[in-house]
Amino acid sequence: MRQALQQEFDDRMTNWYRLNGIRSHLSWDQQTIMPEKAALGRGQTLSWLAGQAHNHITDDKLGEVVSLLEAEIRDLDDDDACNVRRMRREIDLATKLPVELVEEMASVVSQARQVWQDARAASDFAMFAPSLQKIIDLTKAKMQYLGGDSANYDVLLDEYEIGMTMADYDPLFAGLRERLVPLLDKIMRSQRKKPELSLPEGMQFAIADQDSFCRFVSARMGFDFTAGRLDTTTHPFCSGLAVGDTRITTRYDESDPFSCLYAVMHETGHGLYEQGLPDQHALCPRGQAISLGIHESQSRLWENQIGRTTAFWQVVLDTFKEKFPELPPDLGAEEMNRIANAVKPSFIRVEADEITYNLHIMMRYEIEKKIFEEDLPVAEIPEVWNTMFAQWFGIEVPDDSLGCLQDVHWSYGAFGYFPTYTLGNLYAAQLSAKMVDDLGDLDEIIRSGDWSPILAWLREKIHSHGMLYDPSELIERATGQPPSPEPFLDYVEKKYSRIYGL
Amino acid sequence: MRQALQQEFDDRMTNWYRLNGIRSHLSWDQQTIMPEKAALGRGQTLSWLAGQAHNHITDDKLGEVVSLLEAEIRDLDDDDACNVRRMRREIDLATKLPVELVEEMASVVSQARQVWQDARAASDFAMFAPSLQKIIDLTKAKMQYLGGDSANYDVLLDEYEIGMTMADYDPLFAGLRERLVPLLDKIMRSQRKKPELSLPEGMQFAIADQDSFCRFVSARMGFDFTAGRLDTTTHPFCSGLAVGDTRITTRYDESDPFSCLYAVMHETGHGLYEQGLPDQHALCPRGQAISLGIHESQSRLWENQIGRTTAFWQVVLDTFKEKFPELPPDLGAEEMNRIANAVKPSFIRVEADEITYNLHIMMRYEIEKKIFEEDLPVAEIPEVWNTMFAQWFGIEVPDDSLGCLQDVHWSYGAFGYFPTYTLGNLYAAQLSAKMVDDLGDLDEIIRSGDWSPILAWLREKIHSHGMLYDPSELIERATGQPPSPEPFLDYVEKKYSRIYGL
Repeated sequence: MRQALQQEFDDRMTNWYRLNGIRSHLSWDQQTIMPEKAALGRGQTLSWLAGQAHNHITDDKLGEVVSLLEAEIRDLDDDDACNVRRMRREIDLATKLPVELVEEMASVVSQARQVWQDARAASDFAMFAPSLQKIIDLTKAKMQYLGGDSANYDVLLDEYEIGMTMADYDPLFAGLRERLVPLLDKIMRSQRKKPELSLPEGMQFAIADQDSFCRFVSARMGFDFTAGRLDTTTHPFCSGLAVGDTRITTRYDESDPFSCLYAVMHETGHGLYEQGLPDQHALCPRGQAISLGIHESQSRLWENQIGRTTAFWQVVLDTFKEKFPELPPDLGAEEMNRIANAVKPSFIRVEADEITYNLHIMMRYEIEKKIFEEDLPVAEIPEVWNTMFAQWFGIEVPDDSLGCLQDVHWSYGAFGYFPTYTLGNLYAAQLSAKMVDDLGDLDEIIRSGDWSPILAWLREKIHSHGMLYDPSELIERATGQPPSPEPFLDYVEKKYSRIYGL
Repeated sequence: MRQALQQEFDDRMTNWYRLNGIRSHLSWDQQTIMPEKAALGRGQTLSWLAGQAHNHITDDKLGEVVSLLEAEIRDLDDDDACNVRRMRREIDLATKLPVELVEEMASVVSQARQVWQDARAASDFAMFAPSLQKIIDLTKAKMQYLGGDSANYDVLLDEYEIGMTMADYDPLFAGLRERLVPLLDKIMRSQRKKPELSLPEGMQFAIADQDSFCRFVSARMGFDFTAGRLDTTTHPFCSGLAVGDTRITTRYDESDPFSCLYAVMHETGHGLYEQGLPDQHALCPRGQAISLGIHESQSRLWENQIGRTTAFWQVVLDTFKEKFPELPPDLGAEEMNRIANAVKPSFIRVEADEITYNLHIMMRYEIEKKIFEEDLPVAEIPEVWNTMFAQWFGIEVPDDSLGCLQDVHWSYGAFGYFPTYTLGNLYAAQLSAKMVDDLGDLDEIIRSGDWSPILAWLREKIHSHGMLYDPSELIERATGQPPSPEPFLDYVEKKYSRIYGL
């Protein structure tokens, strides 16, 4: 009886994850290589698949099976119990949404993607506004279904990081700002004293050479290219489509090799998490990543704690110069690292330094609060964005492509998502501090060129656990401490004091 | 009542085609860009999707709906009636097969693909034999389910081209051989008299330049690259995944630019058919290609009747020489065409000339007959292949990669498929003869560089009709004559007499 019940549960769970894997695949294709005229039909297919998946997760029979297993949850082993608990959350989230809403959202965002790309290319917010309005209206409807009449922005925040609300984020962000703003101020004043370092003015970095350098770094980090791909897209992302099929993407700027390099290190960090999830638990929660915040900690740790160090450049600089022999021969690892860590308020979040990055996030958080708590009209978003940006960063946004059109997230309805990026930064610093306790000086490991101990530590402490523990418990198990912003603040203060001689 | 019935039919038909489109998409990905380690999981996903599609097409409710509509078929318009008739055939084909067989076949062929690729690379038939054995066993089981106790190879032939059996093919092939063999003999004797033309010995043709030349030709033919893609694979193919999404593939040989060029022209011919199907009937039979033979007529017409002519080379030679400036300046269109039409018994079917190509097909037809009519053991296939090849072509097969491992078809269970290639050649010649009647001299149109009248004629006579007419009726409507081998024999005799001065 229990066996038949378990089998019924496994079949339904597996089918749902399989459908989601197929959706991810068609969405990856849509964002990387799909022909332009396929957009409408692809939108319909993704919408149909979303409806199919929704039918699976909301099927009464699945709900019954989960209820029966919940009654016996003490008799289940940890893996099975994890699957039952996580599927319950998925069912609850889904059953509250009518299938028509889910399908309409999928259809709207699928078409909005192309509109957003065109609007961004033309730097014309008005082009994108009608799509965004539809997405916000549907998101507000979603909030009502999920949270009832008292629904607020918390509903969206919790959806992306279990248990986090405005009551958690508001003081956390205030605390961060309190120590970050004086640090930024000190750096800006120190910079004014010395000439800024940069790569030779006007130098071009061929895409093919950037690509092969980035593949070299990604492979060195441990990305398995026989179980994944690297492709080109507008907005870099990582998608774990299936066992043995993790796909990362990047973009190329011929005048700036750092943009692509750190995007690839970032996405490779995500990709290593996906490749490190336990294959034997594929197609169930036990084998999935637990949260966006934890995912982001993996990407940020590789991108910043490892990639933006002098030790990293000591290892890779020779290869970099082989690709780009026109670089000055006396350009050293120390200088490369200074350039890679230049702190400077700039317009694009994904290219921001580690100090201002969190200001970008906090600004988006405030604007989303205005949209969902204060009904900010869509047409006013550019003005609010630009005004706030001038206040926080001290520079004027020249056009919307460098402002409120820069991020893909809103085009697919991901409101409440941005704050998880800052969580990722905090977790990454906390994990790497503990890694030093366990493995010894991180710079020495990086400088050795053999980074496998780092990956092995992350595999053991994070990747192998899948969805077994909630994010905060996972961090506490890995580091011995509950999540805290202190390691991140200690890290940036120490790092930038050294770089800028504060 | 009728309206509700029609809606029910439309929904179920559409869902089935949508699932099939998704299967084609994941299969395209598998053959072009999938990471190696994804093979097992992809096989399982394709198998699951095959099962889902099978469940859709065999659902009793669909069968009932179709029966009810069949009872009123005289009241339906031509499009709706076409959909009902074609869905009936699909249902009948599918309901005879148990879902377990369909899933097992999908799973086996998905894994066999990689095995075949490895075996072909290693030229080791024994590596592939166990997979092929499984596929043949499953195909024999399929024959029994479809045709009952008296099932024979006819069941497989009919599956790929409606209504065609051994009783049709045997005399047709005998008739072809009767005039082709003397022609081949005359050509071989004439060749011995004069030195063979060829491109400069040892010259290399960079892949990037071949690629851009092929894209130029494909676009000139009318392929819409905003509604399709060109990618690289082991075995060139075309797949119409959805409206606005037709994908063709090719392969590159740096020492032979013709191999890639004619593969691209061939696949573009298929792609133009897919792009020319009526979008308003997407996701139903009315908007699908009618048969493999008709599909092949489109690819062969562009590849041979248009691409292998002096007129074609007069139009494209300047561009070709821009890509490859090391070519001798005095190499003219006439010479290029002579090289492109060199008749010479060779090992690889897809690179064969128009005379020997049909001998390749007839040989595979004979071997498949031995497998299914005489239970030829798998282990003996290479020996039978090589012996027959020596007899028919007068040359010894040096290894299996140039012999029985060269084609992808058996690795996915496509037995009975090959003869449709020769049908394609016959239809192509018949269509182009009629095109001359309607449009005037074909060489003149080709030489003008504006090939749109050719595409427009094919759109009107073939593409726009989808599955409205059976293949032979479609040919008769387009040409005024039932299908016949005479136009093809007239065409090759005239063409090669001119080229070789027979």
